[in-house]
Amino acid sequence: MKDIDVIAAIRVAVERPSGPVALHEPCFVGAEWTYVKECLDSGWVSSAGRFVETFESCLRDYTGVRCAIAVCSGTAALHLCLILIGVVPGDEVLVPAMTFVATANAVAHCGAVPHFLDIEERSLGIDAAKLSDYLRSETTLSSGVCINRRTARRIRAMIPMHCFGHPTDMDALLEIAGRYHLKVVEDAAEALGSVYRGHAAGTLGVFGALSFNGNKIVTTGGGGAILTNDLELGLRAKHISTTARLPHSWAYSHDEVAYNYRMPNINAALGCAQLERLSDMISAKRRLAMRYTSTFAGIPGMRIFEELPYGRSNYWLNVLLLDRDEVARRDSLLACAHKQDVLLRPAWTLLHELPMFRDCPQMELSQAEDLGRRIINLPSSAFLGGYVRAA
Amino acid sequence: MKDIDVIAAIRVAVERPSGPVALHEPCFVGAEWTYVKECLDSGWVSSAGRFVETFESCLRDYTGVRCAIAVCSGTAALHLCLILIGVVPGDEVLVPAMTFVATANAVAHCGAVPHFLDIEERSLGIDAAKLSDYLRSETTLSSGVCINRRTARRIRAMIPMHCFGHPTDMDALLEIAGRYHLKVVEDAAEALGSVYRGHAAGTLGVFGALSFNGNKIVTTGGGGAILTNDLELGLRAKHISTTARLPHSWAYSHDEVAYNYRMPNINAALGCAQLERLSDMISAKRRLAMRYTSTFAGIPGMRIFEELPYGRSNYWLNVLLLDRDEVARRDSLLACAHKQDVLLRPAWTLLHELPMFRDCPQMELSQAEDLGRRIINLPSSAFLGGYVRAA
Repeated sequence: MKDIDVIAAIRVAVERPSGPVALHEPCFVGAEWTYVKECLDSGWVSSAGRFVETFESCLRDYTGVRCAIAVCSGTAALHLCLILIGVVPGDEVLVPAMTFVATANAVAHCGAVPHFLDIEERSLGIDAAKLSDYLRSETTLSSGVCINRRTARRIRAMIPMHCFGHPTDMDALLEIAGRYHLKVVEDAAEALGSVYRGHAAGTLGVFGALSFNGNKIVTTGGGGAILTNDLELGLRAKHISTTARLPHSWAYSHDEVAYNYRMPNINAALGCAQLERLSDMISAKRRLAMRYTSTFAGIPGMRIFEELPYGRSNYWLNVLLLDRDEVARRDSLLACAHKQDVLLRPAWTLLHELPMFRDCPQMELSQAEDLGRRIINLPSSAFLGGYVRAA
Repeated sequence: MKDIDVIAAIRVAVERPSGPVALHEPCFVGAEWTYVKECLDSGWVSSAGRFVETFESCLRDYTGVRCAIAVCSGTAALHLCLILIGVVPGDEVLVPAMTFVATANAVAHCGAVPHFLDIEERSLGIDAAKLSDYLRSETTLSSGVCINRRTARRIRAMIPMHCFGHPTDMDALLEIAGRYHLKVVEDAAEALGSVYRGHAAGTLGVFGALSFNGNKIVTTGGGGAILTNDLELGLRAKHISTTARLPHSWAYSHDEVAYNYRMPNINAALGCAQLERLSDMISAKRRLAMRYTSTFAGIPGMRIFEELPYGRSNYWLNVLLLDRDEVARRDSLLACAHKQDVLLRPAWTLLHELPMFRDCPQMELSQAEDLGRRIINLPSSAFLGGYVRAA
């Protein structure tokens, strides 16, 4: 099928015969304006006001986690999680080669070194079987510390990631992490609303990190959150994300080097309104995924990635997977789509191919490289699946 | 005069005979609603949309600087400025002992060490004469590098700070910085609208950093900005504050370890509306300062800090300075005020007294310690000086 006909099929699936089709747009049809206006009317747009607490409480309720701490970005969330599990300069942290650059940046912000892992086609997440073999052959366990034999550095942690919202195989990865004494920070930046074997994405590691960037299923303009079931770590996360200020009516005192990573009240207001509609948005996104699946069932050489039986995907971004012998057409398909104002996107440049991470430790990454060439993300806004569009 | 009578005098000066009087509240009487609603209606609340660019352009126009880069906090602004002037782990950075903890945190975030300087009563900023003597006796200049003889570490930079909005003596500090090859990052977090010898605060160092936290003269909920007259450094600041993404219609590629420190469009929208009214707000705050000055002229044992002839203060927070023999009553005055719902505040705990910075290098800090005990900040919201209050 010709590129232009593939784009036409996408337009049919999203029911947008003409006009621009963005990759992912938010949809403010709930209480967004009411809540934001409340902030402006009350003057509470910043660190005080009711919405940050409400947003955190709604996140707890929705995911079933004990602590949720709102912060200013997904990167900030990952950064604090890594600090709090004890990542220190010179450590290595295992990161899938296919993810947004923020994950590796957060590792680098700790002075640590990302160590890149291959992914599998089945889940688009870390290939657990391959990782198990790799750690057996490349590392030494010595008094509960996993050492990379090539670099002699400690491997402190692993960051499983739910790619485009599709749940990664947490059980397999947690088992390996347990065996090698690796702390797990779950990168659920794209996976709010996704479920793995009955557990909300982001609630299975020591910490989970969410993102509320403008392109995410729930947006606060910019923002993120830290999830944890460890109450003590949760309090620590809140403390160091808010300058470690000691409670006092008027004195300004602080007890450790800390960050100003808090989420402003006006952004949390937006998040509260968005969260109230999350179930509807997920239903719409799942309807859209089904439409894409049946559309592409009739197009040879490519297929839609479908969720695995172990979980439920929020289908944040739908994945069109080209067959290997169709890889050569990817860029012409993308160019054709952009010319038609249908904003498809390839997967991110793999992290080990970026200049600043080129020399970082890595396993053999042939599956990530293969999938990196074959993945195209399709327009996935909730309203394309029938979620009410704002007037 | 009894504590309760001092509080009564403050209530007269601010024309609030009863009810709570906050330390500093924003006032949204301009286009805030209109602009924020535009964000929601358009869906552009995050990284795209017109307000970030407009906000940056308004900041350039207002301060006369060549580049302004909006970021997510004042801490983020300071952090990036320090990275961009080349602060590396193990460096020392000169910081006044009396400032908000963010300044020292930003130094620590670079892996560098804050080195604390004394301040002067005249400006509440770094004591230039004392600093000059100190550097002569404590440092060695070797091929253009200033070395702290006690620690053997390089002193890379100085962060002059305009305390509570009152301009510090930049000429004297820039002269010393030039002599010792120190890069200057101007901490103008509190000083948007203040002027030093005809130049806007924040435009005299290699970089200046602004804050738009909720308590600042202009707020974006949470936010900050980097100012610089160096176009190349300005482009670098924009690049590393936005994940160092390379421009491309669809590909996601990045060329260095970078940050997600951008300001969301919805926060910039608030900032644009606020900036339009900045001149009026400053006038109101200056009227309030005059009222305080004349009120306290009649109260023995304390006086209002007044701007120096070399500049114009935005009077972000008015400073009540207790005479030395009145120091003992500070806490009872604060407690009395809080009981009456008039939210006075002492100066911050000095940075060298905080546990995490206690062992950092420092000069003799007697003036900072003296002023730290004598300063009380008074309620300073613009509307208390006659700026229109929102209904």
